[in-house]
Amino acid sequence: MANTLRLGIAGLGTVGVGVIKIIQQHAELLEARSGCKIVISAISARSKNKDRGIDISNYAWEDNSVDLAARDDVDVFLELIGGDSGPAKAAVEAAIAAGKHVVTANKAMLALHGQNLALAAEAADVNLRFEAAVAGGIPIIKSLTESLAANKIIRIMGVMNGTCNYILTRMESAKLPYKTVFEEANQLGYLEADPNLDVGGIDAAHKLVLLSSIAFGTQVNFAGAELEGIGQITIEDIDHARDMGFRIKLLGLAQMTDAGLEQSMRPSLVPATSPLAQLEGGTNMVVVEGDSVEQIVLRGAGAGEGPTASAVMGDVMDIARGIKIPVFGQPASSLKPVKAARASNKAAFCLRLNLVDTPGVMAQISTELANAGVSIDRMRQFSHNDTSAPVMIVTHPTERTAVEAAFDAISALKVTTQAPLMLGIVDV
Amino acid sequence: MANTLRLGIAGLGTVGVGVIKIIQQHAELLEARSGCKIVISAISARSKNKDRGIDISNYAWEDNSVDLAARDDVDVFLELIGGDSGPAKAAVEAAIAAGKHVVTANKAMLALHGQNLALAAEAADVNLRFEAAVAGGIPIIKSLTESLAANKIIRIMGVMNGTCNYILTRMESAKLPYKTVFEEANQLGYLEADPNLDVGGIDAAHKLVLLSSIAFGTQVNFAGAELEGIGQITIEDIDHARDMGFRIKLLGLAQMTDAGLEQSMRPSLVPATSPLAQLEGGTNMVVVEGDSVEQIVLRGAGAGEGPTASAVMGDVMDIARGIKIPVFGQPASSLKPVKAARASNKAAFCLRLNLVDTPGVMAQISTELANAGVSIDRMRQFSHNDTSAPVMIVTHPTERTAVEAAFDAISALKVTTQAPLMLGIVDV
Repeated sequence: MANTLRLGIAGLGTVGVGVIKIIQQHAELLEARSGCKIVISAISARSKNKDRGIDISNYAWEDNSVDLAARDDVDVFLELIGGDSGPAKAAVEAAIAAGKHVVTANKAMLALHGQNLALAAEAADVNLRFEAAVAGGIPIIKSLTESLAANKIIRIMGVMNGTCNYILTRMESAKLPYKTVFEEANQLGYLEADPNLDVGGIDAAHKLVLLSSIAFGTQVNFAGAELEGIGQITIEDIDHARDMGFRIKLLGLAQMTDAGLEQSMRPSLVPATSPLAQLEGGTNMVVVEGDSVEQIVLRGAGAGEGPTASAVMGDVMDIARGIKIPVFGQPASSLKPVKAARASNKAAFCLRLNLVDTPGVMAQISTELANAGVSIDRMRQFSHNDTSAPVMIVTHPTERTAVEAAFDAISALKVTTQAPLMLGIVDV
Repeated sequence: MANTLRLGIAGLGTVGVGVIKIIQQHAELLEARSGCKIVISAISARSKNKDRGIDISNYAWEDNSVDLAARDDVDVFLELIGGDSGPAKAAVEAAIAAGKHVVTANKAMLALHGQNLALAAEAADVNLRFEAAVAGGIPIIKSLTESLAANKIIRIMGVMNGTCNYILTRMESAKLPYKTVFEEANQLGYLEADPNLDVGGIDAAHKLVLLSSIAFGTQVNFAGAELEGIGQITIEDIDHARDMGFRIKLLGLAQMTDAGLEQSMRPSLVPATSPLAQLEGGTNMVVVEGDSVEQIVLRGAGAGEGPTASAVMGDVMDIARGIKIPVFGQPASSLKPVKAARASNKAAFCLRLNLVDTPGVMAQISTELANAGVSIDRMRQFSHNDTSAPVMIVTHPTERTAVEAAFDAISALKVTTQAPLMLGIVDV
C-alpha cells in the first residue's frame, strides 16, 4: 500500500494555483513516480472566496499560515506567500518547529535569512527545499547541489530576471527607449510592486547568492553582493554593443577568489556568440563552470505558473521519495562565513562615452586612460546627428579598480553630454 | 564519525581515470558534501601496468571485473568498461547479485538490457545509476527523473553525439566535404572503433531510448527507434539549408503518440534561431518539453574525461547521501512495454533534389508532390556550375507517409544526378 504525503499550501497566487493544478491533474503520475499518494490537507491565503479557477472545496482552510504550518495533518509545508520576512518567515519557522518539511519559492527570504532557517531545519531534521526560488522551472538548485557535487565550482553566471531580459531584448527588437519598455512591462504585469526589485537587480541577486552558497560552501551573503540596475542602458548602447560583437545582459556572476567571494549583478557585455547572448524575452539561463564538468548551461522559463509549480513539485517529489540533503548541499553548521570581494580577476571593460564634439577631447580621454594604466583594445565612434559623439572603448583585460579610476577621471573632465557608462565584458 | 563508501572501479580508460582523479583531488570536498568518506577499494582493467598518469598503487587489483564486483570491501561497483554485453554486463549482474550499488556510463548495455538490469537491481534493493551514459556531464537523467517528475513529458529532443555535431559544424565552417572531415575526426580519435556507432546515429539513439523510458514510463525499446546517419549530408545541403534559415543537426526526438512511442534519430533541419542550431563542435544539448515546465534546455560537454567523470561521481555522491530512486524513475516492474510508432504528427519536410537541367523536370516534380497531396511552402533553386540544379523544397506541415510517397515517386523519375534526400524540419 502506498504511503501518503500530506501537504499544507500557504499562498494561492500564481504558483500556489499551479501546484494545486498539478496535484489534481496528475495524481496517478505522481504516485507512480514517487511511490506515494500526494494529497493536499489544508490551504491558506489572504482571501478565501476569490475565484482562482480551481476547486479548493476539499481542502481544509486556515486563515493563518502559521496555524496551517503546524497542523497535524500536514507533512510538508509549502510556503508560496513571498516577502523576505513577515508572514512567510513566521510560517516557515513554525513549520520547522513543528517538524514539517518545507518547500518554498521565496528567494528574498532565503537570501536574507537562509543561514538561520537552514540551521533550524537541519536541527529539526527536516528538509527545506527551494528549487522554485531560483530561475523558475530550471533545475539549477538540484543540478548544482547533487549532479555537480563532485566539482569544485569555478564560476556561476546567469541571467535570472526575466523582466530585465524582456526589457533589454524588447528595447533592441522594437527600437524603443528604456522608459517606454519599462511602462510596457508594467502594463503587462511583469514588474514587482516595487519595480526596483527587478530593474535594480535585487531579485536576480537574491537568486545568485543562493547559488553561490551551494557552489562555494559559504553562508548566504546578500549584503556582500554588488548591484547595478539596467536603468542607464539606452537603445544606442545596445545597438553599438551589437555592432562591436556584444549583447548587453543583466548578468550575475559569482566566483571565489583569494580575496573572498565575488558576487555581482550588473548589466554586462557578453560576446554575441555566447549562449547567454541568444537569450530572448523572459527566458532565464544559468551557466555553471566546474573543474571537471567544464561548462554546463541550463535554460528555461524563469517564472510563470507552470514552470514555477513544476519546480515546487520537483521538491515535493523528492521529499515523497525520501531524499534528504542539507539545505545548501552541506550541513549549514559547516558553511563558512565569507568576506565579500570586489571583482579581482582582470577583465575587459567597455566604456560608453557621449563626447562633446570639440577638438582635443579624444586626446584628453586617451591621456586619462593611459594615466590609469588602461590600454585600449578597440575603440569605435558611431555616426551621430547631434553635437555629441557616441564612442565605445573596449579595454584590454585590466583590473576593475584601474578602469574605475580612469572612468572617474574621465567623468570629472565634463566632456560628456550624458553620464558615461562602464560595463564589464564577461567572456563566456 | 563519517561513514565510508567503498568503490570498486572496473575499466581504467578515460572515464575511470577521471573518476580516480576526482576522488584523489577532492576527498575533503566530497566528504563535506556527502557526509561520507569516499574511498576506492579495488580496481580492474585490461592492463595492470599501463601508465595512466595516476597513482593506483593503493588500490587492490583484480584481473577480472566480475571478481571485483563481488568483493566484500566494495559497496558501489563502477562499470566503466563499455560494450553492450560481454564483461560489462556480466560484472554488473555480478555486482547486483552481490548486493552492490552500480554506477555505469554504459548507454549501449542499458539500451539493450536496461529493463532486465533494472528489474534485477530493484529486486536486490540496490541502485543502478547512469547519469554518465547520456550526454556526458549534462545532468539530464537527474533532471528528467527528479526535477521534472511532476511533469507529463511532451517531447524530448537532443543532439547527443558530439562526433556527429563536430563533423556537421566542421563541414560548414571549413567548407570541407563529409569524407574529409570524417577522416579528420578519425585521426583526432573522436570516432568509435566501429564509426557507424557514431555517424549511423546508433550511439545517440542508445541515449535517446534511455531518456524516453524515464519520460514516458515505458520499457527501454531500442529496437523501436528509427535511425538514419549523417553520411548523406553534403556541404551544399548545409549551406543551402542555412540560406533557407535552417541548420542541419543529427537530432533525436521522442514523443508519445496515440499510435505508440515515436523515437527517431535523424539528420534534421532546425530553425537557425533554435537553441539547437547554435550548438557547435562536440557540445551536446537536450531539450525537454513538459506540460508544466514548458521548455528546458540543457547544454554541455557530451564526452571527455572531466565531464563524464563528473556525472559518474554525481551518481556516487547520491548513493553516499543515501538517495535511492528506481532506475528509470518508477519501479521497473511498472514500466509498460510499448509499441513503436512512426512519426505521426504532421511536420514540415525539406526535399533536397539535384535535378538534371532539362525542361519539364520541375513540372514532373510538382506533379508528383501534388499527387501525394504534399503542398509546397517554399522552394529555392540554387546557383550551380554543372548540369545539375540543386533544389530545396520545403513542404507545408504534412504526414511523413505522404512526403515519403512523393519522395519515392520522385526518386523513381530518375531526374536527379545524386540520391535525393528528405529531411524533417523540427520546430523547436
